[in-house]
Amino acid sequence: MRVIGIDCGGEYTGFGVVEESESGVLTCVDVGAIKLSPREPLETRLNTIFKRLCATIETHRPDVVAIEDVFYAANAKSALKLGHIRGVAMLAAAHCGLAVAAYAPLAIKSAVVGYGKAEKFQVQVMVARLLRLDAPPEPADAADALAIAICHIHTAATLLRQHATVR
Amino acid sequence: MRVIGIDCGGEYTGFGVVEESESGVLTCVDVGAIKLSPREPLETRLNTIFKRLCATIETHRPDVVAIEDVFYAANAKSALKLGHIRGVAMLAAAHCGLAVAAYAPLAIKSAVVGYGKAEKFQVQVMVARLLRLDAPPEPADAADALAIAICHIHTAATLLRQHATVR
Repeated sequence: MRVIGIDCGGEYTGFGVVEESESGVLTCVDVGAIKLSPREPLETRLNTIFKRLCATIETHRPDVVAIEDVFYAANAKSALKLGHIRGVAMLAAAHCGLAVAAYAPLAIKSAVVGYGKAEKFQVQVMVARLLRLDAPPEPADAADALAIAICHIHTAATLLRQHATVR
Repeated sequence: MRVIGIDCGGEYTGFGVVEESESGVLTCVDVGAIKLSPREPLETRLNTIFKRLCATIETHRPDVVAIEDVFYAANAKSALKLGHIRGVAMLAAAHCGLAVAAYAPLAIKSAVVGYGKAEKFQVQVMVARLLRLDAPPEPADAADALAIAICHIHTAATLLRQHATVR
């Protein structure tokens, strides 16, 4: 299975493509973060994210897109801003014919650190260890994107095992 | 000048293309609303909006996209939902090489009804009168989209007059 995780943010939108081999070994295929200039009009920034995500999906052909579910109730203004970027990320998935799976922040941190309230640096360190990277991915948004992809792979594996047990 | 106004909403996303002749006469070139099925995944609904808006822009080739500024502080959840659709509408503009102009709800209602706190049906009636339509546009989201386009045309005309006076 190959998954692209996307971590939507106002400054950086992180992305990470993770491949799981048949024996269950995880490999980082690609990782990066799209930096947005606050001086550009919002529509130009959204277009940059869309084009970059579509290009990454077309290059690496993942099976599914995984993103973060948003629950936190900061305020309506920041939720609207995040919504713009999240909507474009989901559109990039549908535009390339892929489905979207969303995971709660607690589930994502639990999947990589084993603790739902882990700090950002703990996620970076554990993602690097799980994917055998030389250094923790930077910025933190890139590590978060890989964590989201790993969360989807772990969840899919659990669902398959449960399904097998039931049968 | 030719303007497409877009009114983003969870159930319907309205759009309206308005042309201003050199003598200042306004004509409705196209108007409609994209209905979204709540049973479809969100990414599929966003893709429907994106494809329909891009097709409308490519057919009618407006000079600019006008949308509503969002200030109201309902709650973070509804702001996030609206943000998804608004982000995709702005992306459609940038994807087709157009800039986006945003107007406050008060300014839009003032531009068509002359009163910033007008009711929805007043906007529908006045839009029909200004564009010499046989009946008020339905649903209200389609009338709102035309109102946003008219607001942009009026604002641009005012700015031009001010510029001429200053010179």
